[in-house]
Amino acid sequence: MNIIKKITVRSPATVANLVCGFDVLGMCLNAPYDTMEVHLLDEQKVIIHSTDGYPLPTDPMLNTAGAPLVEMIGELNAGIGFEVMINKNIKPGSGLGSSAASAAGAVVAANHLLGNVFSKPDLVRFAMTGEKVASGVKHADNVAPCIYGGVTLIRSIFPLDIVSIPVPELFVTVVHPQIEVKTADARQILRKEVLLKDAIRQWGNIAGLVAGFMQNDMELIGRSLEDVIIEPVRSILIPAFDEVKNRSKIAGALGGGISGSGPSIFMLSKEEATAKKVETEMQEIYTKIDLPFYTYVTTINNEGVKINP
Amino acid sequence: MNIIKKITVRSPATVANLVCGFDVLGMCLNAPYDTMEVHLLDEQKVIIHSTDGYPLPTDPMLNTAGAPLVEMIGELNAGIGFEVMINKNIKPGSGLGSSAASAAGAVVAANHLLGNVFSKPDLVRFAMTGEKVASGVKHADNVAPCIYGGVTLIRSIFPLDIVSIPVPELFVTVVHPQIEVKTADARQILRKEVLLKDAIRQWGNIAGLVAGFMQNDMELIGRSLEDVIIEPVRSILIPAFDEVKNRSKIAGALGGGISGSGPSIFMLSKEEATAKKVETEMQEIYTKIDLPFYTYVTTINNEGVKINP
Repeated sequence: MNIIKKITVRSPATVANLVCGFDVLGMCLNAPYDTMEVHLLDEQKVIIHSTDGYPLPTDPMLNTAGAPLVEMIGELNAGIGFEVMINKNIKPGSGLGSSAASAAGAVVAANHLLGNVFSKPDLVRFAMTGEKVASGVKHADNVAPCIYGGVTLIRSIFPLDIVSIPVPELFVTVVHPQIEVKTADARQILRKEVLLKDAIRQWGNIAGLVAGFMQNDMELIGRSLEDVIIEPVRSILIPAFDEVKNRSKIAGALGGGISGSGPSIFMLSKEEATAKKVETEMQEIYTKIDLPFYTYVTTINNEGVKINP
Repeated sequence: MNIIKKITVRSPATVANLVCGFDVLGMCLNAPYDTMEVHLLDEQKVIIHSTDGYPLPTDPMLNTAGAPLVEMIGELNAGIGFEVMINKNIKPGSGLGSSAASAAGAVVAANHLLGNVFSKPDLVRFAMTGEKVASGVKHADNVAPCIYGGVTLIRSIFPLDIVSIPVPELFVTVVHPQIEVKTADARQILRKEVLLKDAIRQWGNIAGLVAGFMQNDMELIGRSLEDVIIEPVRSILIPAFDEVKNRSKIAGALGGGISGSGPSIFMLSKEEATAKKVETEMQEIYTKIDLPFYTYVTTINNEGVKINP
């Protein structure tokens, strides 16, 4: 077995749902991000190494980076394979698309090594296999923004229909309180039925958010960042959620909410100074209740997975 | 009692819901339309005349044009009133915003006679009083597009939050089969709860529709014109609904569905020739089953109620 070529990629964190877009919207961040080195091999196999402390499975079929590559080389059936070194900075179970970063980074790197034979929708399709390994469900609201960059709408999974939504420059503050919320658990507590009147409010909000993004209407973005269906249930799992949200808004944030299935919380701001004030509020809240946390002040990443950063 | 000033307005039909935007989206049409003459009086009273054959109530509090004006002059309390002559072309119970046209036309005309003292959101607020007279519920998805023109999103009713959505030039074919569907009845048959998975599909579609309108992406508009919640229930009330939809799409329409609570059906097309082919299909279908109908081929009206047409 020989290495034919190799490449390094930077695979970023993503915020799924964006408050009112449960299961259909996602946003790519500039921080945090994983770094991955991917080797093209002259043998049809997938090898996974973890270069950090996380106990991630190295069996490719059980690994979120491995499973998509197994599918990809199976489709190609060209006697080639991949070896992947993952340096993980996005904590698994943070709600920041950790599994998506592994899956998306692996397929974008592999595709680049192959001379870009696959389209972006193909890559999303492969990467979703990784999400299925991680959470039991094929979903694209992290892998699509990770691959496309910016904000993406997944209008439909079957058939796959991904729409890039142009967004203004915005600053994003993220706090990751150190408790684990498993995506599968966070999904379990949701009701299978919702009130029609709540669903109507939700689709009014997502329409407002998309229009706000596309028209650079900051106030409309802020007003539309409201979730009457998922947040009231899931926020119970996140200590001090309401306080973080309230104090962030008082500090000037446009709005925000749970990142993916949590426990991370994100807030959008027009100005970097506001985003930093929001970070200070978040730090004070979790310091006071003695819960370890990470915070990030970053921007929307319009590029997605970056080749040779 | 003397007439101080008078004015004529053209108040157009509107399509509420736009398939995937139940209760939050509406679109203004160039045809059909009502014509109204409104007189400013030097006495605090509202007088309604019907200049056509419809048996509309002339008691202002029971009339969709009258109730908003009663509210308006009450707020002003300036010893002035209005006399309204309505020439109705939009059939009540057609699903084309007949009551909204009366209410919106009356308040826009009255406001113009008063020197535009009220804002557009004020006018929508007054006009909703007319909708309450007509259907028992204050809703804005017809009066807002009738007053603003184009496509409007009513993100929220309380507080009122109306967003104009820029739209490309599109041709609209409407068929109004001559059966009556009362808004209140059409609302009654809806379930109070919906499946979360259906609600997710719906908010993916409305986000896609808004993005499609704003990016002039005709194919995305077409794919997003899908309603998995309301249409399957309400379309049962409309004879030949599925056939109209299927044959319109085969004829080249982007998509469409029930206008408001029906029974009218609308279809969007990129080209006028297609819109006319769609009309021919609709005519054939209802002629064959011997159901009287009206059809219209028109465009989106970006102006709304027109002063002195």
